[in-house]
Order: sequence, then C-alpha cells, then structure tokens
Amino acid sequence: MKLIAFDADDTLWVNEPNYVNVKEKLCELLSHHIDQTTLSQRFYDAQMRNLRVFGYGAKSFILSMIETAIELTNGAITGSEIQQIIDVGRELVEFPIEVFDGIHEVLETLSQQFDLMVLTKGDLFDQESKIARSGLGHYFKHVEIVSEKNEQAYLGILKKYNLQPSEFIMIGNSLKSDILPVVHIGARAIHIPYAITWEHERVGEEYLEGKSFTTVDNARELVGLLEKAKTREIA
Amino acid sequence: MKLIAFDADDTLWVNEPNYVNVKEKLCELLSHHIDQTTLSQRFYDAQMRNLRVFGYGAKSFILSMIETAIELTNGAITGSEIQQIIDVGRELVEFPIEVFDGIHEVLETLSQQFDLMVLTKGDLFDQESKIARSGLGHYFKHVEIVSEKNEQAYLGILKKYNLQPSEFIMIGNSLKSDILPVVHIGARAIHIPYAITWEHERVGEEYLEGKSFTTVDNARELVGLLEKAKTREIA
Repeated sequence: MKLIAFDADDTLWVNEPNYVNVKEKLCELLSHHIDQTTLSQRFYDAQMRNLRVFGYGAKSFILSMIETAIELTNGAITGSEIQQIIDVGRELVEFPIEVFDGIHEVLETLSQQFDLMVLTKGDLFDQESKIARSGLGHYFKHVEIVSEKNEQAYLGILKKYNLQPSEFIMIGNSLKSDILPVVHIGARAIHIPYAITWEHERVGEEYLEGKSFTTVDNARELVGLLEKAKTREIA
Repeated sequence: MKLIAFDADDTLWVNEPNYVNVKEKLCELLSHHIDQTTLSQRFYDAQMRNLRVFGYGAKSFILSMIETAIELTNGAITGSEIQQIIDVGRELVEFPIEVFDGIHEVLETLSQQFDLMVLTKGDLFDQESKIARSGLGHYFKHVEIVSEKNEQAYLGILKKYNLQPSEFIMIGNSLKSDILPVVHIGARAIHIPYAITWEHERVGEEYLEGKSFTTVDNARELVGLLEKAKTREIA
C-alpha cells in the first residue's frame, strides 16, 4: 500500500448540507412564484443539463439556480431577485469548513506512516479554496482535483503516480464516485457513509452485489484498519 | 531538459478573441441600457472582484456578465434578458477550438524527443473540455490545470515531477503567467506573443528589465531552438 487517497466533501468535512441550505434559500426567495416540489424537480433537471457543459461545483450550481428561476417565472424574475440568488450562492464558496470529528487525529497519525492524497472531483478553484480553509492541507503529500471520478480517472491517477491497483486505497462517502469505480479497477476502497447524499451520487443496491469493499462508521476506525493492512503486507 | 510545458489558451489555440466576442455581444444586448465604455469598465471591475471568489474561466465570466448587467440597470433587467446573457456565455464552453498554424507539426516532432505537458490555469472542466476539443491531447504526457500560475505554482510542479529548474522549460503567450514567474524561479521560458492580451495579463515593460527569456514569432521556431538546447546539453 503506497498511497491512501481521501475524498474531501462529506468525507473530511461537511459539504452537502451547505448546498441543501442554499437550495432551501432559493425556495424561499421564489416561494411567491412557485411551489417547492416543482422547483426541486426543475432545479435538478437544470443541474443535470448543466453538468455536461459547466461541470460540478458552486459556480455551476449558481448558474443552475439562475436558469431555474428564469424558467419558472417565464423570464419575469427581476435582476434584483437574481442578484439575491447569486448572493445566496456565494455562501457556497465562502462557508467556514467544518472538519468532521476525529479527522485531524486520524490524518496526523496516518500521515506519519503513509503518503496521503486528497482526491476530489469538482471545481478546481472551489476545491482548492476548501482545502485551504479546512486547515488540513499539510497532512497531504498530494492533491488531485479531477472533473469526474470514474474508472478512467482512477486509472489516470495510478499511471501518473506509477502505482499498481494493489498499492492504492481510496476512502470516501460516495459509493458512486469513491467506491465502485475503485473496486472495478481492482484497487481497495473504504466507505464512510454520510447522512446526506446528493441524488446524483446515489446508487441502487443492485450495483453493490458481489463488490468487495470495507465500510466503517467513523474515520477513527481507519487507523487500526490501515495499520493492520500494512502489517499483513510486511508479514 | 526533462520537461517542456506549454500554456494552452492563445499559445496552442485561439481563446481570447472568443471572450472579446462574447463581451461585444453583451454590449449589444445592453446597448439600450448603457454605453460601451462604462460597461467595459464596470465589467472589468466585476471580473476582478469575482476572480477572488470564483477564479478564472467561462463560468466566472458569465457570472460577472450577469452581475454587471444587474448593477448597470439598477436591478431592472429581466430574467429573459439574463437568459440571453447566459446563452451568449455558453458559447465560451462550446466554441470550436482553432489550433494555431504549425502547432500540430511542432508537437508531433517535439513529442518524439521530449516529455511534453499542458500547463494551463483556469477552470478545470473548461480547460479539460478545450484540450479534448483541440485534438492535441495525445501529444502530451502530462496535463496540469492550476488555479493560478505564480512562482508557488511552478515550484509545486517542479516538486511534484521531481525536477530541477534547469530541467524545465515553459512556453506561452502571457508574460505575466508563463514567463516572469518561470524566470524568477530560475527555469527557462519561451515567449510566443499573441495579438490580443487580456488587460489582467498585461505587464509593464519595467517588469521585464534584466529578465532573460527567449521570444519567438511562431511556434515553428520552437523545434530548432529546443533541439539546439538539447544538443548543447549533451555536448
């Protein structure tokens, strides 16, 4: 095991609840125009449409909010209201980073024994800013921000760092992005579920059949698990 | 010389004129609200303000267009007009990539003798999409997209690839991003000026005093120059 990669959002720190919170504020801002269920559905549609041209992250999210507001008001929404939406969205690039309980200690311990990487998908500027705001940057030897976490992306990382699949472990909260593609390329993955998962990241149970990975409740369990794996390798 | 890095926008392909073109369309859309000079100035101010929170790239550019339009109409602009702005801005993530004359041949030749890298700043999704659309991706062993090209970023690249400054050459059109920080860390830089430079990337002549780098008119000159440098190293 030469490299341990951590997902960032909702693995190292709270992220999705900030997006949920901003979406709720959008609902409030538009509550005199439209009901919440319709808004949620159309907003999700806009996000999926824009994912292909704008990618993940805060700016793409803000543009989807604006387009949804325009669409649902048939263009009648005013510039002032749109500025309110942008200002609410700006919270997504500025919110204080709430690091999960135990993460500092776990990274402190693991970084003394292993090379650690942050491996996250999303908007480059956005993710770099969150890493800086988190105060966790110094634990990581490498930072890689990719536009999508699929098998191809993981194979690219292995090639770049000259690693075999058996030398790589991925740790994260998203079955879709952090676990399944990693298992598919023959590397190891550790799942730390988080309470809230964005609809786009959910996977049906049928996709998990026959897939081998470890699930832990809390990041604190990682230390024992990874040290044991290391001992087994040496033995 | 172990690694030759190329900037992308306005070095490998036409970029800035597409942004100028979209800005002109914004001026047209808002021409009944505001004169062009005021618009240009306020738009630049919005861009600089947003650079700090949103970074470079198309999405940030679109958000700055929207905010400028709202500001200059005192919020009176309609949602429909803002949708027009977004649609015009969407051209920035979709325009066909016009590769500069000679680039294919130069990269074909150089890639047989050297490790080549694309090293560009900006929005990750945006830049990856342009590299894919350019059809040049296969010439490059490495692709690195950074949020800012300053001395720290270049030192980070050298560290990551385990290189001494003398083993690295940067080629690009921006004195500010591709040349000066590279010269400052003791590595070599080759400047290929481009006709149009974004205001933010311009540097005063006083910053160039005493700085040593090579300027070429056309990418075709790179082959002779780099082969000569290689021969000198071997001799």
